[in-house]
This record gives sequence, C-alpha cells and structure tokens, in this order.
Amino acid sequence: MLEKTNLTLSVSEKQFNKQMKSLEEQLQSVQQKALSLKIPVLIVFEGWSAAGKGTIISKVLHPLDPRHFNVISTRRMSEDVLYRPFLWQYAKNTPQEGKITIFDKSWHRMILPEGKSARKFSELEKERFYYDINAFENQLVDSGMLIIKFFLHISKDEQKKRFLALEKDKDTKWRVNETDWEQNKEYEKYQLRFSRMLESSDFEASRWTIVEADDKNHATIKVYKTLISRIENEISRRAQAAPKQELNETSDNGSKVENILGKVNLVNKTVEKDEYKKRLEELQHKISYLGYKLYSKRRSVVIAYEGWDAAGKGGNIKRLTQMLDPRGYEVVPIAGPTREELAHHYLWRFWKQMPKDGHLSIFDRSWYGRVMVERIEGFCSREEWSRAYKEINDMEFHLNNHGVIIFKFWLHIDKDEQLARFTSRQNDPLKQFKITEEDWRNRDKWDKYEAAVNELLQRTSSSYAPWHIIESNDKKFARLKTLEIVTTELEKQLK
Amino acid sequence: MLEKTNLTLSVSEKQFNKQMKSLEEQLQSVQQKALSLKIPVLIVFEGWSAAGKGTIISKVLHPLDPRHFNVISTRRMSEDVLYRPFLWQYAKNTPQEGKITIFDKSWHRMILPEGKSARKFSELEKERFYYDINAFENQLVDSGMLIIKFFLHISKDEQKKRFLALEKDKDTKWRVNETDWEQNKEYEKYQLRFSRMLESSDFEASRWTIVEADDKNHATIKVYKTLISRIENEISRRAQAAPKQELNETSDNGSKVENILGKVNLVNKTVEKDEYKKRLEELQHKISYLGYKLYSKRRSVVIAYEGWDAAGKGGNIKRLTQMLDPRGYEVVPIAGPTREELAHHYLWRFWKQMPKDGHLSIFDRSWYGRVMVERIEGFCSREEWSRAYKEINDMEFHLNNHGVIIFKFWLHIDKDEQLARFTSRQNDPLKQFKITEEDWRNRDKWDKYEAAVNELLQRTSSSYAPWHIIESNDKKFARLKTLEIVTTELEKQLK
Repeated sequence: MLEKTNLTLSVSEKQFNKQMKSLEEQLQSVQQKALSLKIPVLIVFEGWSAAGKGTIISKVLHPLDPRHFNVISTRRMSEDVLYRPFLWQYAKNTPQEGKITIFDKSWHRMILPEGKSARKFSELEKERFYYDINAFENQLVDSGMLIIKFFLHISKDEQKKRFLALEKDKDTKWRVNETDWEQNKEYEKYQLRFSRMLESSDFEASRWTIVEADDKNHATIKVYKTLISRIENEISRRAQAAPKQELNETSDNGSKVENILGKVNLVNKTVEKDEYKKRLEELQHKISYLGYKLYSKRRSVVIAYEGWDAAGKGGNIKRLTQMLDPRGYEVVPIAGPTREELAHHYLWRFWKQMPKDGHLSIFDRSWYGRVMVERIEGFCSREEWSRAYKEINDMEFHLNNHGVIIFKFWLHIDKDEQLARFTSRQNDPLKQFKITEEDWRNRDKWDKYEAAVNELLQRTSSSYAPWHIIESNDKKFARLKTLEIVTTELEKQLK
Repeated sequence: MLEKTNLTLSVSEKQFNKQMKSLEEQLQSVQQKALSLKIPVLIVFEGWSAAGKGTIISKVLHPLDPRHFNVISTRRMSEDVLYRPFLWQYAKNTPQEGKITIFDKSWHRMILPEGKSARKFSELEKERFYYDINAFENQLVDSGMLIIKFFLHISKDEQKKRFLALEKDKDTKWRVNETDWEQNKEYEKYQLRFSRMLESSDFEASRWTIVEADDKNHATIKVYKTLISRIENEISRRAQAAPKQELNETSDNGSKVENILGKVNLVNKTVEKDEYKKRLEELQHKISYLGYKLYSKRRSVVIAYEGWDAAGKGGNIKRLTQMLDPRGYEVVPIAGPTREELAHHYLWRFWKQMPKDGHLSIFDRSWYGRVMVERIEGFCSREEWSRAYKEINDMEFHLNNHGVIIFKFWLHIDKDEQLARFTSRQNDPLKQFKITEEDWRNRDKWDKYEAAVNELLQRTSSSYAPWHIIESNDKKFARLKTLEIVTTELEKQLK
C-alpha cells in the first residue's frame, strides 16, 4: 500500500493559509453536529517515526472544543497494560457518545516488532491478531462508532533529514533513539512490514487513509479534509438511517434452538451435609493453593455467573472465593448500566474490569445480560442483541488468546424451587430486602428467559469458553460442582 | 500507645472454636444490615511486619458477602501513585454506600520511613501530614462513613520467631527482606515511631484499636468483636439520628457575606481585535512552553472554571489549552453526578481526576457545585453544604502540599449580557442546543446564585488556592486575563 504513494505532493504556504481557516471552521462545525447527534468518533494516527503525528494531532485539535475530545497516548507500557490482553487499554478508552478520541499509536502497532531485540510473531499469532482487531473494529462500527485511521507516510530521505535536525537541537535530541535509526537504515524492510499491516487491517468498515507527509502542509490539509468528509458522511448516513427495529424475541438465527435447559436433570443432584463439609474444605484448600499458582505463573481467570433469580449465585461465589487471597481476586456485581456506561459500547464496562495476569475477576451477572434481560425487556434492538453473540464470542476469543482461563456458569433451578425460595425470603425479615417486585415480574417471564438462555448456551459455548450448567436445587451440590470444575481446569492449565 | 499493651493475652484453641461460629454469624448479619442501611465501612489494617494482617483479613472476609467488599492492597508503588498527592489512591478507593473496603496498609504509613535509606520528614511536613489525614478522616466520617482502624501489635521476640519461620520455608522465604529485619533489630525505635503515629492520628471520629497479636486467636477475636460492635453502634446511631435538616439557603456562618460580585467593575474591560490576536498568540506561545516545563519539572496544575451560564467557559478553556501538548492536559466537564458518583463521598469523582505530576487537569465546573447548585436546588442538606467550605479548603490544602498549582476562575458577566447571549443562542440554529429550559430557570435564581457565589468566594479564597474573578462581558478580554494569570503564576513557580 505504501510503495505506490506519491510523496512529492505539496501545498504552498500561501495556499495552505488560504485553505486552513475555512477547514478549521468546517471541522469545528462537524464536531458540534456529531456532538448533538451523539456520534462517537475514534481517530487513529499511525506512521513512521518523525512523520509528524504530534504536530498534526495538535493542528487537528486546534479548532475543537476541548471538553469533548481526549488524546490517548500509549507510548509507555505500564504493568497494567503489559499484563492484560492487548486490546484492553484501547477498549477501555473508546469514546462515549458525542466524543472524539484520538489514539496516538494504536493496536495496529502490536504486530510490528520494533528494534532488533523485539520478539517475532508466528503466522498463527498474526492470524489471530488480525482476527481480533477486525472483530474489535467491526463491533465498534456496528455500535455506531466512526473509526478514522491515518497512516503518515514519509520517504527515507525525509525521515533521515528530520532525525538529523532533531539531533542537532539539544532540546529535541532525546526524541531520536537507536530504534528510530534502525527504522531508517532498514527503511525498505519496515515499509514492507507497514504495508502488510495496513493491507491486512484495511477492513471494509474502517479503512486506512495513507497521508503523504513529506510535506506537512499537504498532510495537514489531507487529514482535515478526510476528517470533515468522513464525519459529514456519517451525519448524513444517520439522517437517512431507518429507525431502530422493534424487539422481537424469537430466536434470531432462524434455525431451531435446542431446549438445553429442558433436558437438565435436577433430580438427585444433592449432597449430604457431612460429605459437603469435607469436600468443601478439600476443594477450598485446593483453590487457595491454585490461586497462588495462578499468580506465580501470571495466568488470569474470568468467571461469569449467570442463573435464575434466587439460584444461589451469591453463596456460590462466596464458597469459591472464601479461601482465596483477597488481593488476588475481585468480585464484580453487575447491576443496570449507569448513564456513563450507557453512553459507551455495551462491552465497555466489562472490558474495564478484566483481570491483570495472575488475578481472577468474578462477575456476578455479566455481558450475557445483552442477550437475556436487554433482549427480553427491549433495552436494545433486535439487531443489537442478534449481533451480540458473535461480539461476545470474539471478546472471549481475544481474552483466551492472551491466556485468560474462562468459566461461564449457569446456575439452574426449576420453577417450583424458585417459588419456594422467593416465599421463604419474603417471610424472613432479614432476607426481605433480597426480594423485590422485579423478581416477581421476571418470574412471570420464565418462558421467555428460558428461550433466551437456551439460545445463548447454544451459540456462545466454545472450546475456549464453555458454558457449565450447575444443577442448583441443592445449593451445596452446586457449590461443590463449580469448585470442582474450576479446580480441575486450573490444575490442568497450571501443570 | 504501644508500650503499655499486654501482649500475653491469649485464647485457647477450644475457646476460639467455640466463639468463632457465633462471631461469624454476627458479622455476617451486621454486614447485611449495613448494606440495607447503605452505610459505607472503611477498615484499616496497620501493624508490624509479620503481625498477621493477611491472615486476619482473610478471616474477617470469611463470612462476608464478596459482592459487597473489596480489599485494597497498596504494597506496590506505581508511577500513578508516586506522582500524585499521597491521599489520592485512598480517596479514590473509599467505599460507596453499603460496601466494605479494607485497606491492607494505609495512608498512616506515609509518615513512617521504612528502612535506612528512606527520607526523613521535617516537623513541618509531619504537621501538615497529620492535618491532612485528620481532615480526610473527618470528612469521610461526616459524610456518614464508618472508619475502623486496627494496629496489630506483636513483641520483638514473636516477630523474630515469625521471620525465622518464614525464612525456613522456601515458599515463604521471599516474604522477609532486609527492611523487615531492620524493624526487628531496631524494634524499640520503631515502636516509638509507631506509637507517635498512632497517638497523632487517634482522632475522635476515628480512633485506633490496638490489637494484641502475639496470639492469633486472641487477635482474631478482638478484631471480630470490635467490628461487630462498631458497626452495630453505627446502625443504632442511624436509627436514632434526626432526619436531615431542611435546606435553608441563607448564609451559613451567621456573619455578613460581603457583596464581592456587586463590586466587580465590568465597564471598559475590553480589548481591540488586533491587540487581542497579538496578545493571544504571545500568551499561547508562552503557555505551550510552560506546559513542557511543567512536565520536565514534574509539577501539576489544577484549574477550576466556574461562572454564570453563557459566561464563555468553553471558549476560554479552548484558548488556554489550544497550544498545549494534548498528552499533557485533560479537560474534565462536570455534569450532574451519576448513580455511582452519588453513592460515594461528593468529592470522590473529583479526586479520581486529579492530575499526575507534570500534567494539567482543567475542570469545566467543579467541586464548587456543592455550595452553588446543590445548595440552591436542595440536592444536599444545609449541614452538608455548610461543612463543604472547610472540606474543600482542606482538599485544596492537601493538593498544594503536594506541590499542585491551583487556579480558580469565576467568569463574571452581568444579567443584561447573559440575556443578550441567551437570546442570540436561541436565534442561531447552530447554537440552539447550547441553551435549555434549565438555563432560563437558573437565570430566575440569579440572586440566590449571587449570594452563594459571594459566600464561596469569601470562604474559599486562600493563599494556596486563590479565586480570580474574570470580567467576561468581553470574551476576548476574559481569555487574555485568564491566560495572563496562569502564565504569570507558572513562570513564578517554575523559575
């Protein structure tokens, strides 16, 4: 993609000054429109060292309202970032509705080993990488985000000239290091790498714009014009777009959904009190030890708990975590989204909570709310929840690629058992606060939930993130079963 | 405080097992009550190395619902923490309503230099430190938080015995380092230091509990009993507490509030267009340079913008930031609080946004909302906003102690000018979205706001965080004035 670029394009100072005033006004005006239409805009700047990213970003920001943009610079790697799936730092920084986020260097950079000592990626790793970023960009675009990607391209001579000029000035000398020079010396090799990266990530929903940047005036104007026309296009697309489809909670994929829950046998899934105590102690001892092993091997774990109301999630989680080092895990209770969360991609709030390597994040309810309560209550459109199965699979795939061990539990009870538990809660003054009108309303929608759960079990079980159905009419049995599943898998993974 | 402790207290295994079951049930039950009453509980564990903090924290957590507590471990210092006022990492981790947060080591630790190489604190620094933590703990307690502080105390011999046992086992050997041994060798000196720290931070609202920890059974039981009785006390205190006072928006301190705004002369505070352009360019050039200097000297800046609706905050902020390196500053727009923010101390959301050393945080509206809109609209009680002046002064004092440079701007226009701007916005299709019914409603309350602003200007202007009134009938004049104030002060501070 880079080889064919005409780097001699340039714009005279006079022409530049003439055009910029109007371009600045136009950009300011499209920012205001995007804000009022709540369009989130994500802008990516990639390019050669010394291609002028910093200068152009400053120029782009000049006419913008600083309350509605932010710039994410990912130059320095902290432990927080290194010990997490590589998309994490980007996913948690994606813009909310109406805001502009500019990434100075981006996720595309991950695949480009810089300098001689950097590690090489295998073909399989590369393939996974492109799968991950394609899925990531696609789901952002599908959610209504506008992604604009720039690659600033300069010639070998121009780069060399700029390095030398930077080195001459004692104030800017530090900005050129050995890795930069390596890039210039091996320019052709790097150009090939950049080209390959650009071609492989030139997705239909989020194409690259190559900016000829030997001449800064030309580069600035091209970036401005691209931004203005892309944002304007999105504004008119929205004006023409059909209103969101109505909710329709039948199965999405046309094919028949298997009645997985209906086939679960809840009978005789019980355990005696003494046996329970003994096994619980053994398993808790084991998981406590495995927790330390996770830490020393720097592996992380994500556990999603879902299940019927009153199925016993709280008590189950408690038995799982009770003997773990409290510095090593976090329980994340998921309630309805806050205003801030609603203004972001629906996976954003889960991304933020993904564990650091060596730690466990345990979600009490999870991203599966999208295809359960949000689907059933109409909090999202049919198009949105239909898309979510793939989006969720993709996110879990990415986590797994990083080495995260994933467990998903459906705590299953039958309708009679739920009624018994609701009634007992209602009659116990200490437990009354646990039961609300909403629980009864949800119970009335049992069949709808059952259909939704059957569908999600079918469509989001994968080898890397399987669902486990936990028979929970007997809470003790359920607790032992989850602990057994977790400890068995961790022992296998940490061998 | 430590010298008089009787470290021979112990509890037999039999007695221990007998008591624990009931204590666990009691603790579980008070957690549930605290949750339903929305009491935030902050628990601090301090103590000697190897005093058993980790073990006791695990024991305390055992009966608790893991969805409603979290443990903050501050052992490792990241850049994020080192480059911020020391209370930052604690303030942003204080519990929300109904939750329990346990700090494994706390802010009290800051004053205790560990190891030989640690720096010493001057008497003045110590005095400031105790002032800061007293103010911090007080304002949390005032907001309804329960703070429970434990110091685990062990004898010299017991500590030595534990170190040797840890060193003997290859799995735990790493847990004892030179600094730990230094503590044991210089036990008496450290005991004196700990004692002084405990005495100086044994505030009425948040007293220390010294836990004799040579015997772990005794220690565990004492911690349990203390927690149960403290939480129970808070529960009954709440049951008896009078309902929140009604709002009464007259001046709080009884004394007369000076009419500061009334005396502001808005006439002739204008600037010609050409002069404006020239000066703006000069000042923006200067602030851009000063931004780099801030970074290299690792000083941070907090700017709070307040002012009448349509006073021109947005445009003013834009001129201030336009030439700054976008990686160096953040503009934080403050809207009404989210549900999550409402469940925390009102300063929590501002704490989270405080800049790292070397950076600027610019707040478009700020914590002063507490004594303006929240006071006038009755979003908080009279008692709460009356208390806020001191709380705000204390927070700013703490920031300044860390070296943060603070600016507070009141953008002032008169009532006629506001009307003209509202009308012009209403008539401009591009700007209509900027004007809402709420703006008109606020305008009707001009006099109430004026009184509130006069009071806050009077009560929160300090040498370390002065208010600047910016005459803004002419926006250009206002922009130059803020830029001049900022650049002049930064030049002085960064000399």
